[in-house]
Amino acid sequence: MDHWLLSWFPCPAFNVTSSSFGTGTWRTEAVFSEASLMRVPSDIPLVGAATVSVNPCTAYRLLSDYETLRPGDSVIQNASNSGVGQAVIQIAASLGITTINIVRDREELPSLVRRLQDLGADHVITEDQLRKPEMKDLFKKCPRPRLAFNCVGGKNTTEMLRHLDYGGSMVTYGGMAKQPVTIPVSALIFKNVKLCGFWITQWKKERAHTDREEITKMIRDLCDLIRRGRLVPPPSTQRPLEDFSRALQDSQTPFLSRKQILIM
Amino acid sequence: MDHWLLSWFPCPAFNVTSSSFGTGTWRTEAVFSEASLMRVPSDIPLVGAATVSVNPCTAYRLLSDYETLRPGDSVIQNASNSGVGQAVIQIAASLGITTINIVRDREELPSLVRRLQDLGADHVITEDQLRKPEMKDLFKKCPRPRLAFNCVGGKNTTEMLRHLDYGGSMVTYGGMAKQPVTIPVSALIFKNVKLCGFWITQWKKERAHTDREEITKMIRDLCDLIRRGRLVPPPSTQRPLEDFSRALQDSQTPFLSRKQILIM
Repeated sequence: MDHWLLSWFPCPAFNVTSSSFGTGTWRTEAVFSEASLMRVPSDIPLVGAATVSVNPCTAYRLLSDYETLRPGDSVIQNASNSGVGQAVIQIAASLGITTINIVRDREELPSLVRRLQDLGADHVITEDQLRKPEMKDLFKKCPRPRLAFNCVGGKNTTEMLRHLDYGGSMVTYGGMAKQPVTIPVSALIFKNVKLCGFWITQWKKERAHTDREEITKMIRDLCDLIRRGRLVPPPSTQRPLEDFSRALQDSQTPFLSRKQILIM
Repeated sequence: MDHWLLSWFPCPAFNVTSSSFGTGTWRTEAVFSEASLMRVPSDIPLVGAATVSVNPCTAYRLLSDYETLRPGDSVIQNASNSGVGQAVIQIAASLGITTINIVRDREELPSLVRRLQDLGADHVITEDQLRKPEMKDLFKKCPRPRLAFNCVGGKNTTEMLRHLDYGGSMVTYGGMAKQPVTIPVSALIFKNVKLCGFWITQWKKERAHTDREEITKMIRDLCDLIRRGRLVPPPSTQRPLEDFSRALQDSQTPFLSRKQILIM
């Protein structure tokens, strides 16, 4: 399910977001300990502030925590039109990292490709193209990716893994296809690829009370990108809380690609 | 294929083994650079000296390089009766680490279980038992494993992975079932398991000329275990080189479980 709930609180003095999860965001008033909240700069627009703490944080950690990337290096991802996918494209572009973005084929493919390119995507390819021998031509133009981000599972993920550089890593943060990840033994032994998973809820939980500096730095970096127009939230529909049923329905409609934001 | 070739050279002054691979061991005379060879203590018996540089080295690295293990921790492995499997059992036992050893069911199961227990195996279970709910009773007696060693692939490997501790690692060093490794997305995201591969040939190649100290320490530790009777080579058949055809045939016979050693 791909929806967001409002995780932003307008306070009399300044705006805050929750530094972990499970604080309960559907409320008009609440008393929190200081450690549960994090200040959001007041010049960040509502939608950006309300959504910065989930998908952009995942994208930021995926790009920071698994390989040391330098400008010119490349990463590959599936579900590139998801909230995380779009944030990966934009954060990577701001760091000079090339992105290879896999999307599902669809009727309005050219407009989707254009929209992702406008965000900074270097290469946008369909799942069909990913399987073709012509993929090798792509790697005449950019280096093989040292990192792959997987939000799908199934065959698509095995195909993506085939293009990883020797010794590269694949990080799984979702399983939209509801199928497991299948890895040829040879990729592990002879290509030395590494696999792991990431879950932002757990990452924040482990740090909420012990390593706030790391969370603060991440939110500050992301807000800085938002302020400079380098990180825009994906298209969204704002609905009053009482329309939650319609919002949930839309959030599960394939190819709709709009975040549902509930406003109280 | 599970066979060994003689990788031990009797020299006039002392015995040596090759410090990397591809030096060419089927020869009566050769000139090597000092860096290509490694001295083996002269009190190590022939079969131990000839076979120390492959399977025991793999087992040593598997137990050393992926998680920090303490006495009382546990590891789980499949192909436990293989050359690497038997070395894992013995090295782990010498370190006070509990081993959970998966074997294929067979006619002479009780004698195999006894033989592995004599080597120091704490728990020996069949692939069938691995799938049973009774496995949870085992974890009343020992902690969930922080490391899994996979030499098989396919369903057996997915089952083994289910029993890993939160945040544990599975290292694949072989693929005897000729089937890929299949990982539920939830294991990666919510159990935070990590997967990687190991290949002793590559490991040695990367260190043969730059980090001989690490190789030397490993061979010294292993020879020390051999000398103390804590690491015995698996059952083997020695054959003259001209019988290589029969040796190759036997090395591919399921359940034969004897290493084939060619003598020149």
